[in-house]
Amino acid sequence: MRTAYHQQLDDLAVSIAELCGSAGQAMERATQALLQADLVLAEQTITDYDGMVQRAKKTEEQAMTLLALQAPVAGDLRAVLSALKNIADIDRMSALALHVAKLTRRRHPDETLPEEVNGYFTEMGRIAVDMSSTVKEVVLSRDEHRAAQLADDDDDMDNIHRHLFTLLMDREWKHGVAAAVDVTLLGRYYERFADHAVEIGRRVIYQATGEPV
Amino acid sequence: MRTAYHQQLDDLAVSIAELCGSAGQAMERATQALLQADLVLAEQTITDYDGMVQRAKKTEEQAMTLLALQAPVAGDLRAVLSALKNIADIDRMSALALHVAKLTRRRHPDETLPEEVNGYFTEMGRIAVDMSSTVKEVVLSRDEHRAAQLADDDDDMDNIHRHLFTLLMDREWKHGVAAAVDVTLLGRYYERFADHAVEIGRRVIYQATGEPV
Repeated sequence: MRTAYHQQLDDLAVSIAELCGSAGQAMERATQALLQADLVLAEQTITDYDGMVQRAKKTEEQAMTLLALQAPVAGDLRAVLSALKNIADIDRMSALALHVAKLTRRRHPDETLPEEVNGYFTEMGRIAVDMSSTVKEVVLSRDEHRAAQLADDDDDMDNIHRHLFTLLMDREWKHGVAAAVDVTLLGRYYERFADHAVEIGRRVIYQATGEPV
Repeated sequence: MRTAYHQQLDDLAVSIAELCGSAGQAMERATQALLQADLVLAEQTITDYDGMVQRAKKTEEQAMTLLALQAPVAGDLRAVLSALKNIADIDRMSALALHVAKLTRRRHPDETLPEEVNGYFTEMGRIAVDMSSTVKEVVLSRDEHRAAQLADDDDDMDNIHRHLFTLLMDREWKHGVAAAVDVTLLGRYYERFADHAVEIGRRVIYQATGEPV
């Protein structure tokens, strides 16, 4: 038998999965805007952000209503508080996609990236979007094995990020300081995006196994 | 008459204020380590971080116990959830101080910063530490006017941060790309530190006035 509490918790998971889908979509668009110096797509990502914040707030209210009406304890309480933390992480992921879009807009009509690093950001964007999909999936399925994969994806992200820094620090870097500053910031945005996805994955594993990762 | 709930909420505020003091101290030490290429101080900041994380976890447990035992609703529930968010922000502030210390250690025995930008980081460090003190104070006093000051401090931080970027983007920058990358990351760490302090201030104002900022 499903209790009202479990039904509400499932509904909350659905809302969080939707938010996560939007964060992934925002990062996908922002990355495409960045790689193609596409102002329309950058503007769209920037405009969509406010809606995301509103929906995140509503989802937070949903979790708070659950807490107020059901007054869960022990594991149930932890589940709702995990959900609240997940919302905060997804909120931040959207903000990082926003930062990518804003930097793209600021440099338009110029390309933000020297062509030499396009491949790195194509790959970081791909991993970020994949991680969003995995997060979306595991907040619903609570599949801890699938959630554990996020740590591997994050390793891939960190590897590319490290290579990118090696390239920047190389004496052969010939695109100047301004481009290096942009690449540094953008690299950090993608890396942090992945970190937030990992945090959500950790909570799924903790909920499923009772073991902190 | 003080209820058990209010006593526990006060105790929680005291724990959060202490965490905040530690985050401020971490940023103070990390900044000094950065400016003086002081390896011992950098190592100390790095070592202290684990203890901070443990204490943040304990404080989080304190908030969760309060939720489980008192099952607060409405404004009281919001107060505890605000406290949980404040803990997450302070956790992040400590992590940013850690990043400053780690970058300092990585560059040692070299100076991380070109002398030209030392003044900027002295000032950003001072503002960050001041903001931590203000946060520590307002989570206890719940003084919304004092909390509103954090937004002004953040404006000062953003101004310095902007000037720093102007300097980096200038053709006259003569310290090379590697130093520019470090300065970009460090500038971002201080700016984000201030953002987290502002978030806590906003919650204090919201708790005091019922008006979101």
